[in-house]
Amino acid sequence: MLKREDNERLVRVGPGTVGGEFMRRYWQPAVLSSELPEPDGPPVRVRLLAEDLIAFRDTAGTVALVDAYCPHRRAPLFYGRNEECGLRCVYHGWKFDRAGNCVDMPSEPPGTPLQAKVKLRAYPTCERGGVVWTYMGPEDKRPPEPDFEWLRAPPTHQFVSKTFEHCNYLQAMEGGLDTAHSSFLHDNRLGDTVALRSRDRAPRIAVEPTDYGYRYSSTRSADEANEYVRVYHFVMPNQQIRAMTTAPSGERAEVPKIDGHVWVPIDDEHCWVYNWAYGYDENAPLTPAFIEAIETFAGRGPDDLIPGTFKLKRNLENDFMIDRELQKTSTYTGITGLNTQDMALQEGMGPIVDRSREFLGSSDRAIVTMRRLMLEAIRAVEAGDAPRGVNPEVARDIRAHDGYVPRGGDWHTLFADELKARW
Amino acid sequence: MLKREDNERLVRVGPGTVGGEFMRRYWQPAVLSSELPEPDGPPVRVRLLAEDLIAFRDTAGTVALVDAYCPHRRAPLFYGRNEECGLRCVYHGWKFDRAGNCVDMPSEPPGTPLQAKVKLRAYPTCERGGVVWTYMGPEDKRPPEPDFEWLRAPPTHQFVSKTFEHCNYLQAMEGGLDTAHSSFLHDNRLGDTVALRSRDRAPRIAVEPTDYGYRYSSTRSADEANEYVRVYHFVMPNQQIRAMTTAPSGERAEVPKIDGHVWVPIDDEHCWVYNWAYGYDENAPLTPAFIEAIETFAGRGPDDLIPGTFKLKRNLENDFMIDRELQKTSTYTGITGLNTQDMALQEGMGPIVDRSREFLGSSDRAIVTMRRLMLEAIRAVEAGDAPRGVNPEVARDIRAHDGYVPRGGDWHTLFADELKARW
Amino acid sequence: MLKREDNERLVRVGPGTVGGEFMRRYWQPAVLSSELPEPDGPPVRVRLLAEDLIAFRDTAGTVALVDAYCPHRRAPLFYGRNEECGLRCVYHGWKFDRAGNCVDMPSEPPGTPLQAKVKLRAYPTCERGGVVWTYMGPEDKRPPEPDFEWLRAPPTHQFVSKTFEHCNYLQAMEGGLDTAHSSFLHDNRLGDTVALRSRDRAPRIAVEPTDYGYRYSSTRSADEANEYVRVYHFVMPNQQIRAMTTAPSGERAEVPKIDGHVWVPIDDEHCWVYNWAYGYDENAPLTPAFIEAIETFAGRGPDDLIPGTFKLKRNLENDFMIDRELQKTSTYTGITGLNTQDMALQEGMGPIVDRSREFLGSSDRAIVTMRRLMLEAIRAVEAGDAPRGVNPEVARDIRAHDGYVPRGGDWHTLFADELKARW
Repeated sequence: MLKREDNERLVRVGPGTVGGEFMRRYWQPAVLSSELPEPDGPPVRVRLLAEDLIAFRDTAGTVALVDAYCPHRRAPLFYGRNEECGLRCVYHGWKFDRAGNCVDMPSEPPGTPLQAKVKLRAYPTCERGGVVWTYMGPEDKRPPEPDFEWLRAPPTHQFVSKTFEHCNYLQAMEGGLDTAHSSFLHDNRLGDTVALRSRDRAPRIAVEPTDYGYRYSSTRSADEANEYVRVYHFVMPNQQIRAMTTAPSGERAEVPKIDGHVWVPIDDEHCWVYNWAYGYDENAPLTPAFIEAIETFAGRGPDDLIPGTFKLKRNLENDFMIDRELQKTSTYTGITGLNTQDMALQEGMGPIVDRSREFLGSSDRAIVTMRRLMLEAIRAVEAGDAPRGVNPEVARDIRAHDGYVPRGGDWHTLFADELKARW
Repeated sequence: MLKREDNERLVRVGPGTVGGEFMRRYWQPAVLSSELPEPDGPPVRVRLLAEDLIAFRDTAGTVALVDAYCPHRRAPLFYGRNEECGLRCVYHGWKFDRAGNCVDMPSEPPGTPLQAKVKLRAYPTCERGGVVWTYMGPEDKRPPEPDFEWLRAPPTHQFVSKTFEHCNYLQAMEGGLDTAHSSFLHDNRLGDTVALRSRDRAPRIAVEPTDYGYRYSSTRSADEANEYVRVYHFVMPNQQIRAMTTAPSGERAEVPKIDGHVWVPIDDEHCWVYNWAYGYDENAPLTPAFIEAIETFAGRGPDDLIPGTFKLKRNLENDFMIDRELQKTSTYTGITGLNTQDMALQEGMGPIVDRSREFLGSSDRAIVTMRRLMLEAIRAVEAGDAPRGVNPEVARDIRAHDGYVPRGGDWHTLFADELKARW
Repeated sequence: MLKREDNERLVRVGPGTVGGEFMRRYWQPAVLSSELPEPDGPPVRVRLLAEDLIAFRDTAGTVALVDAYCPHRRAPLFYGRNEECGLRCVYHGWKFDRAGNCVDMPSEPPGTPLQAKVKLRAYPTCERGGVVWTYMGPEDKRPPEPDFEWLRAPPTHQFVSKTFEHCNYLQAMEGGLDTAHSSFLHDNRLGDTVALRSRDRAPRIAVEPTDYGYRYSSTRSADEANEYVRVYHFVMPNQQIRAMTTAPSGERAEVPKIDGHVWVPIDDEHCWVYNWAYGYDENAPLTPAFIEAIETFAGRGPDDLIPGTFKLKRNLENDFMIDRELQKTSTYTGITGLNTQDMALQEGMGPIVDRSREFLGSSDRAIVTMRRLMLEAIRAVEAGDAPRGVNPEVARDIRAHDGYVPRGGDWHTLFADELKARW
């Protein structure tokens, strides 16, 4: 349960809101690199933190991220021409470079002083791990560029995609941080008591705050001798890192990988889910066939998206194509696609969930802690201080892991090596 | 004409509004029984009085009507599993019975005290006449269950359907109570002066308030010797009962029947129209062919609905497929379907009509009285008193009738027997 | 740049707004005559200055423009029957003539005093130049009927169409008055330095206020000996008049014509663009083939509209079918259709542009003057005075012109004859 007022502080992300100012202190994913495949290609609309922007890759190959409207008479720059290191407004030909300077103003007499005065709002970008990142906060608070291990993994071992979600980023992220639900929502083999998650549906959750957010573990009984432990990270303000390295048998997975999500607010009622993964093992790259398989399993394979969009064909308008017979007989939800199941629950809550009407249990510990850290960080920003985790250095060397631990053993010791980044 | 403030009192039906509290003192239709055909079948979304609810038929065959969101973290119960006398949320497996008790909480440690504390809002239901009824008011004010004659008629003689309407329930109901419009809106044989309604287009209306609402009559000249009288009932707060027992010739109809509507607020801008009918004559059941014929005549036959919905194919978006040539030459409106004609007018007013801009005439007497009784009843609820007609007993034995009355005769005497329920 | 408050004064047009009262002092186009092709034909919905109205051509052939709702119980008159010099509401048969008098009230007893009391709001109309005009202001301020030259040109030489636009009328009109943009937005032959507009992209603009609004000129270098001058008119409150009489070569065009637009507010976020043209030369009528060619060039030819509407197939929802390859190689925008290019820019600004965030230059002089005159006129209306240009007499005799002027020459003298109406 959250006071209504605290809920508002967390979920509102537009310019001038406290939650929005907080989110603007961190580098955020703006677009996939693949959306801007070539220099001087078509500009792309980007809505981020309730601001309408345009991204374009200029002649030098650098991505610009600028206000969606020309400062002259507010013409839409989406229709602009991406020419010779700048975007030219097609209304009167004013041209701006990626820093927002007006580099040509042909509708005015040569030498007009107006040209030096007019600026197009432009945000800095950097490109890492297949993602164009941007920083939308005050210039004097700009932190170093993002440096997570998944951004450093070799291209052969790395993968990223994104999905549109029609709800506030916070309830999407809460679904991601929540570990207990996997025993229910994602139970796709009803009655199979062999699966780890089905054998112990009330995992014990321990949360350890860190400089970057927190590390947390879920512990389930595996067999008489062992427990199955997953160690995850919540990286402020909107990322989760987790591992898929152990097969249900307790053996190492064939292609062990780390994966995670970044939940990026489009505005108060919509978000982008960036889905990333990288191979753990130098000798096991993520092949295209493997990537297609995991994306399809997640529900966002090549056949699952509405062409030309990042939206699922199975969506809120068609009740995620729930199959009630399947739900009765074979899977818990009757909904196909692991993350489609998540999305059904998250979007089905309505665009902004009213947290003042919740009843939280012990399985919600990770979520409760996340909210507390976020509210603290918002207060820090209001007080003029740096919020937790703003320096990417603090999350540079972390990795997630999952595996078997003999009863009585301590994963802190046993997993110590595996929890350190190697790329 | 109604003061703007009184209009607001009548049309707003959400929780906490005076009109909403008033409507909540009566049993209301929630769904058709046929929408929940089997125990443990798929749950159904129900929006009623601006509340989002879920109905499901449990293993025992009883219909539950509960909040649409799980009290844990507000996950949508529409995606829930209807299992063994309860609905299980697919997020974390919490399960609730039809009374709203949490009967399983598998994501928490066994014996957690949380389980007894958490309640899902649940409304009582009863099932009569092919309709699931619910009571959404304070428990200590709950009246006895509905007991109209149409609910007691044998299944062979009874029929009920429902239609979605995109406007406030009050303007839909006003269209139903209004008797004068049938001479115009429903004139489907232009120039035919034989039809009763065409011969006398300014019926005299008399309204007699009763314990359940009012009884009213419309009287038209039929021929030199006779008048044609229809006696109807308005049953508080949202039902009309009327008769179709007399053929235009003055003879008894082949299949004499009573029918009516209940106009149930979905929210301020939408309503359900329940359309019911029952045979008057023990020897004349309502056969499927007869039902199909009357539903088709009304405009909601098997071919008139958008499949999978209760919405008309002829609707506001396509101007009810008005045929202007037909309107010029053959029917008054050019719109096909008796109740489709009603709906065109009612929806065409906009979602909530502004009654402060009306000019009412003598033909509006029934409507004026209805508004007065409704406003009185709202005041009664505000004062802590029981509103008119809240005890179904008072409308138990009424029936509607229509027929010829010799000039100078009194229908009160002549129709006395026919106006008493027999089923 | 405009103060936010002044922007609001200009863009809001509903009843009771200062901008709306101002617009109501002038005759405005309501529908095309061709939308009401025959007496007693189907009524047409008209939304104008945020009022919902119905137009119908009565038995006498005169167009009525009345409130969209019956004064009785607010039934929609769109479904009404257009009968014998009046529109009859199909709810209870009340019938109104084009002046708004109730001429029949059959649902009430004969001789009811209600009939004389009830009025349907009705606006006066007149029909000229293929357009039905209406006056929606106070009766005692009604000006003489519109009398522009294009309304007097013979039918063989005259043409008018209309297009729906999804934005406030003011930003659409600003696009029309703006002359500098034609060198960019409408540059459909990239790199062609022969075209007049491409050779000199920073035209000098001179604005001369007049009784009807203003006359303005744009002057571009043509060749060593000549300048190319276009002389336009802005006619208060929402019309532009301009000429296309000179071919790029400097010769007179084969079919010299005057054309223009009237931008009529539907409501704050939508407008109609009336597109008119008339032949300048008695011997060069506007043939159907010529009209089809110019309309197609403008982007609203027979194949460009969504059938049954005045909406473009190339529209905001499909990014005006922008072709980025075409934009890179051949035309400035990649958008096909001259006025479609305008519409892309105007609608792409959002429904109401925020003028407090502009940076205006010298090329915006005509727009700045227009805003100033409009704000002055609004103040005049508030003060009880007549706004500029309200008497059509003052714009009766004007004409636009374009042509070559030898350097050092004065177009005022050289064009004097051509700038006077002849029809």
